[in-house]
Amino acid sequence: MVLKLWANNGAGTRQFHASGPKHYASNAYDPLQNPRGCIELGVSLNKLCLDLIQDWLSTHISNAPGHATFPNLEEAANCEGMHDYGPMRTVLANFMGIVMGGRLTFDPAGVIITAGAGAAIEMLIFCLAQPGEAILIPSPYYHGFDKNIKWRTRVEILPVPCFAHNNFRITRNDLEIAYCSALERGLTVRAVLLSNPSNPVGDVLDRATLQSIISFVHDKNIHLISDEVYAGCVFEESDFVSVAEILESFAEASWDRSRVHIIYGISKDLGLVGFRVGVVYSWNVQLIAAASKLTRFCPTSTHTQGLLIALLSDKIFVTNFLAENRHRVTQRYQKVVTALDQIGIVFARASGGIFCWIHLGHCMRSTTQEEEMKLHKYLLHDIGVHLTPGYACSCPERGWFRICYAAVDDQTLTIALDRLQKLGQGVQY
Amino acid sequence: MVLKLWANNGAGTRQFHASGPKHYASNAYDPLQNPRGCIELGVSLNKLCLDLIQDWLSTHISNAPGHATFPNLEEAANCEGMHDYGPMRTVLANFMGIVMGGRLTFDPAGVIITAGAGAAIEMLIFCLAQPGEAILIPSPYYHGFDKNIKWRTRVEILPVPCFAHNNFRITRNDLEIAYCSALERGLTVRAVLLSNPSNPVGDVLDRATLQSIISFVHDKNIHLISDEVYAGCVFEESDFVSVAEILESFAEASWDRSRVHIIYGISKDLGLVGFRVGVVYSWNVQLIAAASKLTRFCPTSTHTQGLLIALLSDKIFVTNFLAENRHRVTQRYQKVVTALDQIGIVFARASGGIFCWIHLGHCMRSTTQEEEMKLHKYLLHDIGVHLTPGYACSCPERGWFRICYAAVDDQTLTIALDRLQKLGQGVQY
Repeated sequence: MVLKLWANNGAGTRQFHASGPKHYASNAYDPLQNPRGCIELGVSLNKLCLDLIQDWLSTHISNAPGHATFPNLEEAANCEGMHDYGPMRTVLANFMGIVMGGRLTFDPAGVIITAGAGAAIEMLIFCLAQPGEAILIPSPYYHGFDKNIKWRTRVEILPVPCFAHNNFRITRNDLEIAYCSALERGLTVRAVLLSNPSNPVGDVLDRATLQSIISFVHDKNIHLISDEVYAGCVFEESDFVSVAEILESFAEASWDRSRVHIIYGISKDLGLVGFRVGVVYSWNVQLIAAASKLTRFCPTSTHTQGLLIALLSDKIFVTNFLAENRHRVTQRYQKVVTALDQIGIVFARASGGIFCWIHLGHCMRSTTQEEEMKLHKYLLHDIGVHLTPGYACSCPERGWFRICYAAVDDQTLTIALDRLQKLGQGVQY
Repeated sequence: MVLKLWANNGAGTRQFHASGPKHYASNAYDPLQNPRGCIELGVSLNKLCLDLIQDWLSTHISNAPGHATFPNLEEAANCEGMHDYGPMRTVLANFMGIVMGGRLTFDPAGVIITAGAGAAIEMLIFCLAQPGEAILIPSPYYHGFDKNIKWRTRVEILPVPCFAHNNFRITRNDLEIAYCSALERGLTVRAVLLSNPSNPVGDVLDRATLQSIISFVHDKNIHLISDEVYAGCVFEESDFVSVAEILESFAEASWDRSRVHIIYGISKDLGLVGFRVGVVYSWNVQLIAAASKLTRFCPTSTHTQGLLIALLSDKIFVTNFLAENRHRVTQRYQKVVTALDQIGIVFARASGGIFCWIHLGHCMRSTTQEEEMKLHKYLLHDIGVHLTPGYACSCPERGWFRICYAAVDDQTLTIALDRLQKLGQGVQY
């Protein structure tokens, strides 16, 4: 029965990786209560600018009916179309325009609101593919995709292997090879799913790469899903280019916009995971109609939407917040790579996101998955840090680990980096 | 492609019924702006006690971080396990115990929180059945079940016809016949889904009926899903009995609790549809584990949960609210049936819910679905009321319509009932 599948940790999850959070929970680091405990660097939360939201709330907020942040109880209580509440789609379209560089205009009619980006991806996959059909995803990739894409839709993921020599960046040639291989296996490929900035690497795709990918999906007559949930976490010296911008620059060309869809949300850029607001942005009228109906299964609270409408309509707040968030993310990344350089740990080049993708191959006896698992356990139990192993991200090369540096305070990050010192010359485990 | 299916109004929806809301939206009744417009009695919203919630908010609420209704921004912002936020499961378990008669204790460990009851049902069906398997549902039934159960899970609904002579109440014999018929067709039946109080009839099941149904699912080794979202809308002179209470009274018997699951939510009893809080309550450890994982696709905002924890922890408010809600629902029902009696319209006996299930067979030229559709259109365009046709609820008898009387104000209901006067002696359409 289906039940058993999920109860036993489910299709697409990896038992071993799941042991990380469990161990962490039982032995979580605390500077006073448990200073030798395990530091959680495996969860991609962004807590760097919550103080700014807290400040805004303190001065602007009331839940009192009639107040701007809780405009009308009857309206909020009785709204059945949660994907279309008040001016929320307009507010999100405007916010996305600012986050994605200020050069773009998103049409509120293309915004579908969901209970988070994960639900948005699942809903999109339900719309685009039948059970047994396949989605190409450059690997290493965010391990949550396994759940979002495979669990309930029964759609397959075909990882497209990317390698360190190219900073794990996808090329058209990689896609062609994976696509042909899928056809040979008799699989129908429905879409390519990218994350940009990429999770776990933090790579930010340039225009040429985006163009080549759009060109690929156009030629194959398949869809492109661009997960841009970290768009507001691009480092200060870098520039984020949304797939929407590439489409706009080719407005006159024959490219079919209806085959491109963007995933967005407020979990990462605003750090509000618990509020559950995700977005599918699409130019495809049929998809917008279908997805609007399917939001009945992943709706967002109108109470929360009321608050976010007020928060995101405050343009001064939004501008300051986004600038400060990029600044703090950049500082954190610099702190991490400075320490890694000093220790002598190799890392992939990141231009955004809230991760650093490090290589600990020199600590492993061999390049097997088993050795990577052993090293992951050693990091957990002996070094005292929880990192996400490359194995969990379907990385084709062994020895890579993801550090999430935005979920802990600065002092804790310092301690975690100190602990990694031991790895400089390899380890005995 | 799947997309086309949903974009074109989807598997399981009925085009005709969908025209009701569309027409209503373009010609909505307004006492000043559009006094000849159509009155919406087709949507099962409960607006009767929103003033009590509004009053509570006015005196108790602040979104200020640190305040009881918004306890801790960092906690709310970063909570990834939305089905297990703060004391929310305990608060909902306690609330369910009070709503369902005060004689029951629900275990917080059995509470799974979802983004509304619709998502809860879909999630449960994903856990219990494979594509192509079937669920028995006494008909007429809530038309939303078609979407919740069939759309994405690809599970079949087998309506179990119930008839007016028995007030549309299910019997074990009806279930046996439907079950055997399914087996003959080669279908695997996984569960029975009941709504109690029933939507659209408003029937409240007695202990003997519940016992006979539990006994049936036990004998067939299948599951029982009891949708009790209107438990707090049982009329004052009636008594609600949850399926949980029957199970408790048979604690010593060999009945398998792990095959019984309750659906609950705050959309109807509290009238807070837009807040998106539903519950799966189960005694099945494996199901609880599976469903907890699947809540990633239908999570509830922690911001909203914070507010509800404060609201539902106020025992004086909860007690007063529930009593007043039952009082107002009862008054409304009495008003409707008094008018119907006076007009001479036959109706089914209700003991709860926010509907009246009326028979307009005397207005139809014949008992075909086509005639029922014509009458529905006549009611919309000529009489000026939108009712839900029995056809949309898979009713096996023609001529039945559902009135929802809790979504309009008292004056509007008076006008709607006046308009129905014309139907007393039959109509020409």
